Amino acid sequence: MRVAIVQNAPAFGQVRANVKTAIEMMDAAGPFDLAVLPELFSTGYLFRDAGETAALAEPLPGGQAFAMLAAYASKRGIRICAGIAEEASGRLFNSAVLLGPSGMLAKYRKIHLFDTEKACFSPGDLPFTAADCGGFKAGIMICFDWIFPEAARTLALLGCSVILHPANLVFPYCPPAMATRAIENRVFTVTANRVGEERGRKFSGGSVIWSPRMENILTCPDAEGAFVAEIEPAEAESKNITGRNNLFEDRRPEMYGL
Amino acid sequence: MRVAIVQNAPAFGQVRANVKTAIEMMDAAGPFDLAVLPELFSTGYLFRDAGETAALAEPLPGGQAFAMLAAYASKRGIRICAGIAEEASGRLFNSAVLLGPSGMLAKYRKIHLFDTEKACFSPGDLPFTAADCGGFKAGIMICFDWIFPEAARTLALLGCSVILHPANLVFPYCPPAMATRAIENRVFTVTANRVGEERGRKFSGGSVIWSPRMENILTCPDAEGAFVAEIEPAEAESKNITGRNNLFEDRRPEMYGL
Repeated sequence: MRVAIVQNAPAFGQVRANVKTAIEMMDAAGPFDLAVLPELFSTGYLFRDAGETAALAEPLPGGQAFAMLAAYASKRGIRICAGIAEEASGRLFNSAVLLGPSGMLAKYRKIHLFDTEKACFSPGDLPFTAADCGGFKAGIMICFDWIFPEAARTLALLGCSVILHPANLVFPYCPPAMATRAIENRVFTVTANRVGEERGRKFSGGSVIWSPRMENILTCPDAEGAFVAEIEPAEAESKNITGRNNLFEDRRPEMYGL
Repeated sequence: MRVAIVQNAPAFGQVRANVKTAIEMMDAAGPFDLAVLPELFSTGYLFRDAGETAALAEPLPGGQAFAMLAAYASKRGIRICAGIAEEASGRLFNSAVLLGPSGMLAKYRKIHLFDTEKACFSPGDLPFTAADCGGFKAGIMICFDWIFPEAARTLALLGCSVILHPANLVFPYCPPAMATRAIENRVFTVTANRVGEERGRKFSGGSVIWSPRMENILTCPDAEGAFVAEIEPAEAESKNITGRNNLFEDRRPEMYGL
């Protein structure tokens, strides 16, 4: 399976132009099966407050960014995971969707909000879910969720072979740590980080794909564009790591104080 | 606080000689407050079966390796964490103890057994615990426990600022992954790995200390000896990582399927 990571540099608030640019990057990437775009790829990240967020958030499904991506996924027969600011009954969520050729496969609302996001979004109220991608399952977590091992663990225990991880990273800790998320759960992780500056903050690119064996499948440069790599989700199915060890069966929840 | 990692290359089954060598390494290390020795440092690792393990395991407290280390800890006024094969009422455990100048502070029995260990030991039956080290708490996990995020997480939630991690590593995955264990829990991790060959298997040294900020405090070479570094356990006390984020208070157990 070919995975494209789209590193865009959204212009704050320019939803239509940002989605158009991301689609142009995917057009230029050649053939792939699944694209992963950054957190809040269509709006930009640094909302000042909930009012500014409300002005740019959209219903999922139904909003402008969603509709443009859904049409593109349908046209190309691909899947796309992308982070989009969501408005739902007056509440705002830092969300991400997984779209297939026939519509939405999954929606996730960020469960662990980072710093000023707490002033702009409600914490996610939907459970972590495994989306059927035809032959394998994928699950979504967003950016800061990475630091909570419970997030990736929950997705893996739900049967996800691939963790889709839209992000807006400004610190260097996450990309190497995702190697641990991959090996501890025996899954592929796909972290898509944005690039560029916004309201004085620099985002670091360097998106990464890790394999269940802690192999670095792809590390992107700090530059705009779509970067493609090949993964085989079936490699994540077995949790047997020695003749006597199965990573999930060896867990001993009765000994954990979580 | 000065921490010494002791990388020994035990001669299989030569308990008295192995402990003596480890003590000589600590003597040569100069001043320190806490030493961490490898898993099964006194016996060697590659037991063929439970019978061979039984012939070399000892009661904790009370056995030969324990007594020699306890006397040394008392003489120097230091703490020592070391992995020792334990016999208890006919059962065998891959255990580790934390000794202080006045005796045993904690005992841990490896909860996640690796590969052929399952034929030689019973799985640990004691809970993860936080040992009071006078001003901070420390907890023990052993080798393969590293790959289960629940192990370090449990110790951190119990209040441990320092995770003591005796190991016998043959693969390269653990030392970099411990950086994730450190930052996700905002703790220090001290992984003490052995060196040398035993029954055809090569152990890789490269013991590491990571800080709560994912700083590499120490990486040891693949060589015998004691290696000393300075850490400040108080740096692990606060889990506040931004003005609005506390790593533990931000956890959302109701959303985890663990």
